[in-house]
Parts: sequence; structure tokens; C-alpha cells
Amino acid sequence: MKVVKFGGSSVASGNQIKKITGIITSDEKRRVIVVSAPGKRSSDDVKVTDLLIQLGDSLQIGVDHEEAYRQVISRFEEIVLDLNLDESVLREVQRKIDDSIALIRSEDPTGIDALKACGEDGSALVVSAYLQTLGHEGTYVNPKEAGILVKDQPGGALVLEESFERLYKLRERQGTLVIPGFFGFTEEDQLVTFSRGGSDITGSIVAAGVKADLYENFTDVDSVFCVNPMYVENPRPLTSLTYREMRELSYAGFGVFHDEALIPAFKEKIPVCIKNTNNPTAPGTMIVAELPEREEHVVGIASDEGFLNLYVSKYLMNREIGFGRRLLQILEDEGVSFEHAPSGIDDMSVIIREHHLPKDKEEIVLQRINDELQVDMVLIERDMAMIMIVGEGMNQTIGIASSATSAFQEAGVNIEMINQGSSEVSMMFGVKSEGLGPAVQALYKVFFGEK
Amino acid sequence: MKVVKFGGSSVASGNQIKKITGIITSDEKRRVIVVSAPGKRSSDDVKVTDLLIQLGDSLQIGVDHEEAYRQVISRFEEIVLDLNLDESVLREVQRKIDDSIALIRSEDPTGIDALKACGEDGSALVVSAYLQTLGHEGTYVNPKEAGILVKDQPGGALVLEESFERLYKLRERQGTLVIPGFFGFTEEDQLVTFSRGGSDITGSIVAAGVKADLYENFTDVDSVFCVNPMYVENPRPLTSLTYREMRELSYAGFGVFHDEALIPAFKEKIPVCIKNTNNPTAPGTMIVAELPEREEHVVGIASDEGFLNLYVSKYLMNREIGFGRRLLQILEDEGVSFEHAPSGIDDMSVIIREHHLPKDKEEIVLQRINDELQVDMVLIERDMAMIMIVGEGMNQTIGIASSATSAFQEAGVNIEMINQGSSEVSMMFGVKSEGLGPAVQALYKVFFGEK
Repeated sequence: MKVVKFGGSSVASGNQIKKITGIITSDEKRRVIVVSAPGKRSSDDVKVTDLLIQLGDSLQIGVDHEEAYRQVISRFEEIVLDLNLDESVLREVQRKIDDSIALIRSEDPTGIDALKACGEDGSALVVSAYLQTLGHEGTYVNPKEAGILVKDQPGGALVLEESFERLYKLRERQGTLVIPGFFGFTEEDQLVTFSRGGSDITGSIVAAGVKADLYENFTDVDSVFCVNPMYVENPRPLTSLTYREMRELSYAGFGVFHDEALIPAFKEKIPVCIKNTNNPTAPGTMIVAELPEREEHVVGIASDEGFLNLYVSKYLMNREIGFGRRLLQILEDEGVSFEHAPSGIDDMSVIIREHHLPKDKEEIVLQRINDELQVDMVLIERDMAMIMIVGEGMNQTIGIASSATSAFQEAGVNIEMINQGSSEVSMMFGVKSEGLGPAVQALYKVFFGEK
Repeated sequence: MKVVKFGGSSVASGNQIKKITGIITSDEKRRVIVVSAPGKRSSDDVKVTDLLIQLGDSLQIGVDHEEAYRQVISRFEEIVLDLNLDESVLREVQRKIDDSIALIRSEDPTGIDALKACGEDGSALVVSAYLQTLGHEGTYVNPKEAGILVKDQPGGALVLEESFERLYKLRERQGTLVIPGFFGFTEEDQLVTFSRGGSDITGSIVAAGVKADLYENFTDVDSVFCVNPMYVENPRPLTSLTYREMRELSYAGFGVFHDEALIPAFKEKIPVCIKNTNNPTAPGTMIVAELPEREEHVVGIASDEGFLNLYVSKYLMNREIGFGRRLLQILEDEGVSFEHAPSGIDDMSVIIREHHLPKDKEEIVLQRINDELQVDMVLIERDMAMIMIVGEGMNQTIGIASSATSAFQEAGVNIEMINQGSSEVSMMFGVKSEGLGPAVQALYKVFFGEK
């Protein structure tokens, strides 16, 4: 049994939905389908979820919402017409939107999440109805019926363990089940959405629950690339990756997934395949628990901007037992999570994502460090970028660090930080943001360029 | 005014003392002298301090101590005879030793420190007496009289701030003052010794106190070398170094000094010169607060063995706010100080000196980490060595990391850890101990070999 998830661009129009039903019906193992809300049809289009959020905002602040409402409905109307579906499908979508609007009007706190979820829900209604017109047993299955039980954190639901056992029962059902992504229900029967991009989370949870042989994630790219195409033209595609590699790559802004979306699938060791709705015969990228040893040890280069370095120096720091712990305690007290904390003898750096230390917190943190730790100097360096090279077995391969650092030299980019030694599958470099592009390009040349 | 400190080998015999008095009288600025206890005259000789410790142990456990006593006295007797000094000098040395023995016999807790200090004290008596026979105004000055006030931690005295003001008054005195190293007095007038090697501490404190123009530290090498001569034959001498460079080099076992001995001098920005008693015209190594920019950015390679890596891995560690802090808290609770803590996404390493985590503590620490942090894996990897390359301006120089890592590759040594980014003057590499020699040799070749 395969669980198949289709992203927003794959359900953006009637034409796209014809493609995905073609994909679904071409393989009888594709028994459980998870769909996103209709996405952009072209680069200047608006996603249905964004329209719904706009509609919800308008209702809450009490301004005119007719235009947003009309746009949402017309998106679904167009799809229903393109697919020659019965107008009862559109009425059902509209009824759910209207019900959510009524909840918001009655100031029910669950109304906004209910409205935000109408995009995915509508997609599932449309796809299941269209499968039926093709003579295929397609059934809409609501997440509540499917068994996706979550903890109530509106916009940030967390799945409960018992969901997986419930989802396993979907295996007994006949035909093709179509589940809307992005939301679940609490034990009190309230609809709650996951964080943005949550259809990936639903897909991964369902794949884990039904113990799928394969979780296929259809997007609009042929495969995951070994580097961000923003920096390198036509980068090499990745045919296979391990979970650990994918997780490290995602961490540093690899962009295909939220790094946490795949966790439920990883935990159950379900193989994941990233494929392209517009080119379904391309092999895609397989992500698996283990891979046989490969010739090349570096499989990907990930990078992300928006980091800062909190630098603290104090003469004789290394004689002061507990200094590092107390510095991290101050950050923890102030709710600032950190990424890394390399330390010298009399100095320590803490690498933090810039948005985790906004200006107002920055002042408090600096004040407390000065007062409580009696440091000689504390300063914040912004505009840092992190570059990560990733690959299983890297830490046991002589010469990787040498190749990598030679690339920075080639690019004329100074390495502000190197963090290597804890992770077995990655090596991390800090640079000033302006050096990011040249450094990534040089690394690509070293590890993936023509020999 | 110069403060000059002579190490154990420089006062090991009458002949050596003739050399140092030659050095003292050749420069009238050499006004304050600090001396160690007589050291080894040849490689199989025994240091007077070790004889005194043996004598103290024998007295405490009540075994025969005549032989140890006789050996100590005969060392001083020989020196006094060689220098043709009046026998009253020997009687004074002997009286102090006898007084200390009486303290130990009466179970006075200060007796052992008083006895251990007799080596330095005897050296100062002998050197000042010999200066006088040369017609030079040499005066023995006891640390109490000099003003070295310490906190009472027998064998680990800490200097009190008021010492510096008192020491400054030594500037008013005439002639050459000879102060025994290694000990000070508490406010309750008890003699307390510094940690082993404490004559360097005395010299540095005195230099800071009198605000010397220069602190000369005479040993038995022409200069500090840029790498441990154990690994490289005839390594390049270092003519000048900054305090920060010296401190980083000492940290990783550079061996010339306790890295803390020089701190009082550093704090007062007193220039320090390392010179050779046996070759006093050699320029030595100057250590100063700041240096003009040099052509070569790496000035030294230091290394040390005996580290371990405490490795902890836990799925989703990076989502758990406070994880790193709690791990360090456990170590702090158990009194284990750590060196560095590089972290990945789901894993964290803590580098600890092996002697800081003995077997009995290891069990408790591992147990607590398992119980309190619910980790997936915790393990300890022993036999690690650290290699540090040091140089001002290194962190802003493109290509250093590349040159360094290429050396490891050349040597066929895998880099287990890289820690770069916090210190402005060093870059640290972790390797398995067996790779230490080859790696240091290859690094030397890259940074100091013929171009």
C-alpha cells in the first residue's frame, strides 16, 4: 500500500487534478491520497489558503469580506466546471466555508482554523468526486473519521500517539481514500490545523499510521537537488538520500520540506519518494533509513541566512566552572533557543537564528550577560549565514574538510566558524551573508563539478 | 626596572649560580630577582623540592627520614662550598628546615608548606650572600616582607589584590633584592605555597607589583619553539608572541609555563622575555600585549593528549529548549569541568580532559544523562588529542583552514572535531591520539616548512 500526497500546485486546477487522478489510477497500490489546498496556477496567482486567511482576517476585524469570499468560491467553481463535476460538490465545499464563517461570526475560537482548513477539505471533496466519475472507487475521508487526533494548539497542532493505531484501520477499507491534509481533531472534537505546510505532516502521519510500503510526495520538481538552484544552474539531482541526510539538509534551509514533516514516516522507517506531478515517470528522489556505501561522501550542500553570533569574552573564562551553562541558562530564561555554542579558552560564541532574538529581547539578554556574568565584552554580529555539507560516512573520510575549506579559499570567503565533530553526517561553516553565494558555488564545484 | 626569575636548573649548582649572578650584575636594571629551588644538575638528579616533599612524607608517616634530610642539606652544603660562602649561610638554611620539621612534629598544619618552601628560600639566601661576596648589594627579601599576601589554600595559594600595592614599595629599596619564589603569607601570617611551578607565579606577581619595564624569565632553553620538539627536530624558535597567543598555546600543553603563571604580568601589560641562563646573549622570546602585523599568521602549533569525547544523541534534540544547558548542568553538579561542547542537530559532544572524569564519576554522569535527559545514546570515546594552531589575525585570514586541513589529509589523519569561530587567535582540531604525531609534523611542514 502506498500513501500519496499531492501538493498545492498539483491540485491548482482541473487540468492538474486530471494529472493526479491519472497518477492515482495508474498504480493500484496508491490507495490512500492526501491533498493540499489548491495552490498557484501561475507565479502571480494566489493560493486558496491565503485567500481563506484573508477572508478570516476580514471577518474578524469586521471589514468587507465579499471579494475574498467570491474569489475562494470561484476557484472551486472553476475546478468543478473544468472537471464536469456535479454542482452538489461545489455546494458541499461552499457549505463548509459558510459553516466556518458562522463560527467566526459567533466568535467561536475554532472558527479561524476551520476556515483555513476549507482549502484542503475542498480539494479532497473534488478529487474523490472526480475519481468516481472515472469509475474509480474514490472516497472522501475526513481526518476525524481517519483518526488523526491532535493536541489543541491552533495553527500548531501536535499529533497524538493513538492516531497511528486508528489510522492503521484504514487498511481494511476498500477503494481509494482521499484525505484532506493540514488538520486534525482534538479529543473535544475541535478542528485544529498544523503549522503552515501541514499537508506534508498529514501525509507523513498517515503513511506511518497505515504502515505504508512507500510514501510518495508529489510536488512540482523532478527531484531534490544537491544544492539550492538559486546559487547553481542545473544542479545535480539526488536520486537517494538517508533520513539523517534529509534531516540535516532540511535544517539548513533545504526548502523541499519542513524538516519535521517527515518525522512520523522516518520513525516507522517508511521509504519516502519525492516525485513530480508534471513528470511522474521521472524516478524522483528516494529517502530511506539506510543506503549501501556510495563512492561520493558528500551528497548535498544546504545553506541558510539569518543567523547571528552572540560573542562573549571574559579573561579566565575557562577557569570558571559553570560559565557556559550560566550563559545558556540566561538564554533559556528569556526563551531564546540557540543553534550552536562553540567555545575557546576565554571566549564563547552562541549561534542564534536572528528571529529568535528580536531587538527587545536583545537588550535584556545583553544586560543580563553583563550584570550576571561580569564579562569583559559581549557583542552581537548579525548577517551570518550557515552552510552545511552533508553525507553519511563523512566524518570517517579523510580529506573532506580539506576539500571543503579549499573551496572557501577559492571563493575568497573567510570562514567565521567551523562546527564539526558532533554530527556524523554533516560539517557546518559560518560565513558573512555576502559570502554565501560564492562559497556555495565553490563548494558545488569541488564536490559535484566535473572531475 | 627589570624583574628576573631564575628556574631550578639555573640555581642547581654553584657553577649555575655563578652564571646567574653574572647575568644579574651585567645589567643594573635587574633589580628584583626571584629564584626557584635548586633543580636537577643532570637528567638523573633529584630536585631539592622533591627531596623536601619526601622528607615531609617520611616525617608524617613516621618512617626514617635521616637520609632525605642528609640529602637536602648536602645539596646546599655543596653549593655553599662551591661558592666559598660563609658557613653561616648554610646554618641559616638548615635552621629554617629544622624549624619546619619541628612544626610538622608538633602536627602544625602549616608545617608541610613551610618545609616545601625551604628550597626556594635557601636559593634566595645563597644567591643574595654570593652577590655580596661579589661586592654587589644583594639583599634577601622574604615574601612576607615583600608583601606577597595570599589566600590560604595550602599548595594552591591565590594572591590577594593588596599584594600589588605593597610590592610596589620595593621600588624604593636600594640594591638587588632576592626573593624566594613559590610561596606567600596569609593575613594570619601562615606560610602557604602556590601550586607546583609556583616560582613562575611569584615572578609574575612581583613584576606586576613593581610595574617592571620587563619581566625576564630565565630557563634552560634559548627560546620558545613554534612546536613541541618531541614531534619536530630543530623547530623554528619564536622571537615574539602576544599574550593571547601564549595563553592559547599554553592551554594545549605548550609546556614552557603553567598558562596561568603569567596572568598577573599580562594584566599589567608587562612585557615578558623568556631567556636561557646558559646562553644569555641569545635574544629569547618576547611576549607582549600587542605586535605589529606579521607576514605569517600562524605562529605556533600546540597539542595535548588525554581528552575524551562524551557523545550524546537524541532524536529531535534541537527542538528541546534547554537540552544543552541541562547536559552541562549535570557535569557541573558532578564537578566535571569541560573544554568544548560542539553540537549538531540531534547530537552534542562534550570534550573533557580525561582526568576530570575518572571512572567512578563516569558511571554517575552516564546514569544521570540517561535518566534525566532520556537520550537515545550516550557514549564516551577516550584517547583523544587536541591540536591547536595559534596566531593573531588568523580568524580574518582566508585560507588558514584550508592549509591546516590539507595537512591532516597529507598525514592521513582523520579530523574528529574542528572548533573554530569563537577564539580570534586559534583553531582547534581533535584527532585520535595515534594521529597526533603525524598530524603535528604535517602541520609544521605546511606552516613553517621551507617554501
